[in-house]
Amino acid sequence: MSFEVWAPSGLGEVTAGDDLVALLSGLLRSDAHGLRDGDIVVLTSKVVSKAEGRSVDADDREQAITDETVRVVATREHAGGITRIVENRLGLVMAAAGVDASNTPVGTVLLLPVDPDASARALRAGLSAEFGVRIGVIVSDTAGRPWRQGVTDIAIGAAGVVVLDDLRGQVDSFGRPLVMTVAAVADEVAAAAELVKGKADGRPLAVVRGLAHRVTEEDGPGAAALVRLGPEDMFAQGSAEAYAQGWKDALEDKA
Amino acid sequence: MSFEVWAPSGLGEVTAGDDLVALLSGLLRSDAHGLRDGDIVVLTSKVVSKAEGRSVDADDREQAITDETVRVVATREHAGGITRIVENRLGLVMAAAGVDASNTPVGTVLLLPVDPDASARALRAGLSAEFGVRIGVIVSDTAGRPWRQGVTDIAIGAAGVVVLDDLRGQVDSFGRPLVMTVAAVADEVAAAAELVKGKADGRPLAVVRGLAHRVTEEDGPGAAALVRLGPEDMFAQGSAEAYAQGWKDALEDKA
Repeated sequence: MSFEVWAPSGLGEVTAGDDLVALLSGLLRSDAHGLRDGDIVVLTSKVVSKAEGRSVDADDREQAITDETVRVVATREHAGGITRIVENRLGLVMAAAGVDASNTPVGTVLLLPVDPDASARALRAGLSAEFGVRIGVIVSDTAGRPWRQGVTDIAIGAAGVVVLDDLRGQVDSFGRPLVMTVAAVADEVAAAAELVKGKADGRPLAVVRGLAHRVTEEDGPGAAALVRLGPEDMFAQGSAEAYAQGWKDALEDKA
Repeated sequence: MSFEVWAPSGLGEVTAGDDLVALLSGLLRSDAHGLRDGDIVVLTSKVVSKAEGRSVDADDREQAITDETVRVVATREHAGGITRIVENRLGLVMAAAGVDASNTPVGTVLLLPVDPDASARALRAGLSAEFGVRIGVIVSDTAGRPWRQGVTDIAIGAAGVVVLDDLRGQVDSFGRPLVMTVAAVADEVAAAAELVKGKADGRPLAVVRGLAHRVTEEDGPGAAALVRLGPEDMFAQGSAEAYAQGWKDALEDKA
């Protein structure tokens, strides 16, 4: 049981309207590893966004965040302004709704892809046809986590790859049902890929080889299946926001 | 830029008092890959706990969780009982405080290691001496995340490996400062390792080769540096708990 991860270098700047399948095919052909059956391609969402022309004027950054926001989860003032943790239209809870201001031309910011699962499916179909192989595709983005320092990459789009591995029903070596048994495989693959990709140096793509058992025939449910909101969500509001709401409601109830 | 991850198989059941360095050295010697300078060894915390004799009677599971709890973050009733999300004595916010009831003998549950960073340092020193190499060691555990389905592995102990990679101060390809620029490298390595380790079949160890630039001379700050609590923590309480507290405080203030 082993796998390998690498990041082919040399993808130039991607701009609106570029044919990503053609660009990535060229990159993968020029790389000694090539692309084989069972490989998983992990692509930074930024590149998908750029090809989709999801750039907006930086003057509108706060407005862009507002536009991408479905629901504000928490806000916090700090020296540099206000951090807004929000649920965006993809169901992702992220700082600034995932609106990105690095590695974009000065004066612009970048929105997340319109539909990252659809982007993953299109890339999968295109690359599979180009190379005559069955592969998985993950579109990744970088996110913070409560209670943990630092950010990690997660899957925001996926096609042809096991997203969640449900081990419920299996038993452990002592014959007891396994608990904590739905593994977020696609997020772990995205995290692994981030270890070789470069934020600032033209390596937005990684290939993972050796996890062919995680590549599926169907495109599958996509990274949308990784979203957990609604009644299961115990952190729908930041503590300060929920506390303030409770206070307000108590006074109104009393009045 | 590439790395490889594999999980040597054949580690038998570990019991209290076992010499982990000796057991892991035997396992690594019997594996064709061996252990080389710059490798990172990722070990599931459960094995460390077992060697440390951190097993307690299952009758005391709820008491064990209470004993490991520093602060309750959120609780939720469900069909099978009550889930308690708590901060444990290691600063980790986890369901059931990280107390584990799978892959342990029937009638027992397993607490987390006493000091996973110290365990990582001891393993590093022992394995480095055995093999005459400089390596990194990560002790991993499995945790849920708000807003995301499924669990991923994180680093709860670390020695000799970059835990957080602070890119602040670097600029992107357009000359602007990078944002979202502290990468939780040790968590990403733990996640990668989980993709080859087995929960139920004797592969609690993975070796990562190719990330030697993440291996450090000093043991470093350990996985304790990944904990983010206190004023920076916007989710110190579950939404329902914070709301209820706000309501209660408003009425008391009014009274």
